Amino acid sequence: MKTEILYGIHPVIEALKAKRRTFVSIYLSQRKPSKWLDTLLELADSLKLPVLQSSSTQLRSMTHTDSHQGVAARVSPYPWVNFSDILGMNRSNPDTGALQRFFLLLDHVVDPHNLGALVRTAHCVGVDGILLPKDRSAPPTAVVSKVSAGALEHVRMAHITNMVSTIKILKQQGLWIIGLDRGDGESIFAFEFPSAVAILIGGEHKGIRTLVKKHCDGLCSIPQTGNIDSLNASVAGAIAMYEVFRQHRAPT
Amino acid sequence: MKTEILYGIHPVIEALKAKRRTFVSIYLSQRKPSKWLDTLLELADSLKLPVLQSSSTQLRSMTHTDSHQGVAARVSPYPWVNFSDILGMNRSNPDTGALQRFFLLLDHVVDPHNLGALVRTAHCVGVDGILLPKDRSAPPTAVVSKVSAGALEHVRMAHITNMVSTIKILKQQGLWIIGLDRGDGESIFAFEFPSAVAILIGGEHKGIRTLVKKHCDGLCSIPQTGNIDSLNASVAGAIAMYEVFRQHRAPT
Repeated sequence: MKTEILYGIHPVIEALKAKRRTFVSIYLSQRKPSKWLDTLLELADSLKLPVLQSSSTQLRSMTHTDSHQGVAARVSPYPWVNFSDILGMNRSNPDTGALQRFFLLLDHVVDPHNLGALVRTAHCVGVDGILLPKDRSAPPTAVVSKVSAGALEHVRMAHITNMVSTIKILKQQGLWIIGLDRGDGESIFAFEFPSAVAILIGGEHKGIRTLVKKHCDGLCSIPQTGNIDSLNASVAGAIAMYEVFRQHRAPT
Repeated sequence: MKTEILYGIHPVIEALKAKRRTFVSIYLSQRKPSKWLDTLLELADSLKLPVLQSSSTQLRSMTHTDSHQGVAARVSPYPWVNFSDILGMNRSNPDTGALQRFFLLLDHVVDPHNLGALVRTAHCVGVDGILLPKDRSAPPTAVVSKVSAGALEHVRMAHITNMVSTIKILKQQGLWIIGLDRGDGESIFAFEFPSAVAILIGGEHKGIRTLVKKHCDGLCSIPQTGNIDSLNASVAGAIAMYEVFRQHRAPT
């Protein structure tokens, strides 16, 4: 089995909880009592996983960072989901009054910190799936899991080969594709988001590609004052996702 | 004059535009033609500032980072504003229909990346001022200016000595103090924000301190689904600031 290293308290605990990765072993460089450490040790114990004592230096060399928080794990690669499996999911949740469908499309988001932050917010608003092209996207590395506070371990994320053909399939399924743009389009606060929607977010540098933009059902933007260029990409994405959430899901 | 080093395209350009710092000199390690470089050189020229050619290694040693983007500047320290000056500002803007007052209070936000991200969003929604205690707050360093995409150079930021006494002064001025909390309080989407408001955001680890919380006029929180602990502090702050903005300011 190909393996990789996850690190940080939240990524390791959430991966244990999500039960989607196979764990080979867990490495700990400190055992200072804490709520998180108790949770981690209980989860490891219930799954009969070896927990190996390591030095901080060993963890640094294993994780290539000082941000390991004294915890790492050797695990199976990121559990990608098939696009067709996400599409075929149960479409509504009568208990919570959830949206019929809510997807996040990422068109060449290349910064792992932006990807991690977007994944974290997407999980908090309960998106059904995150779709991103194989090429020119940040891969779901340990850094992304760390920045997402472990949300990466829970979300359903699928590789797509072509954004335009994916948009066409989503449209056939009754979803509306709404592109978040820097300048064009109606204010997201004036826009009425449909109950089956995919929010499309462009790359950090060039935004949504022109060809992709043409296939959107609508474009909207976040109103801003002030002198600087624009909001951070992950903050802009968070505000858009929360506006969809507010219009359709948020408990009052 | 005490000086410090700013770096990155946006911080240097925005500091030149804002005209609040005194520039000693600008350092450039590359002159590959670009829109940003033209803007920078024009601004430097109009202010008759020396632009010194430097190597990338020199810039790295000067800025202590590889994220300098080939631009640095020796400038006067961050232009703090007096709390009393912010309080005395013109209170309304009939042209834009702006809020009467909109402040951001930061109670021990210690991560420069969170501070930079909050400052960037605060500038985008047009807050009148950002208030933070002298102790246990991230200082407005070059890193903060970089993360804020230069918004730090434009916002009005004031040091306060005591959060509780600051809250009392703001209340006397007719502002409502609304604390953003992880668990307690009404959903921000159900909350009717008054038109003179200060949003209080707690530190990354412990949130708003208990004593400070007692002095808030109200607490609200951001509804979330999912398994992970919570939204990132700067994303949560952005969603709250944009909800105030949406309710009072956003053009439709």
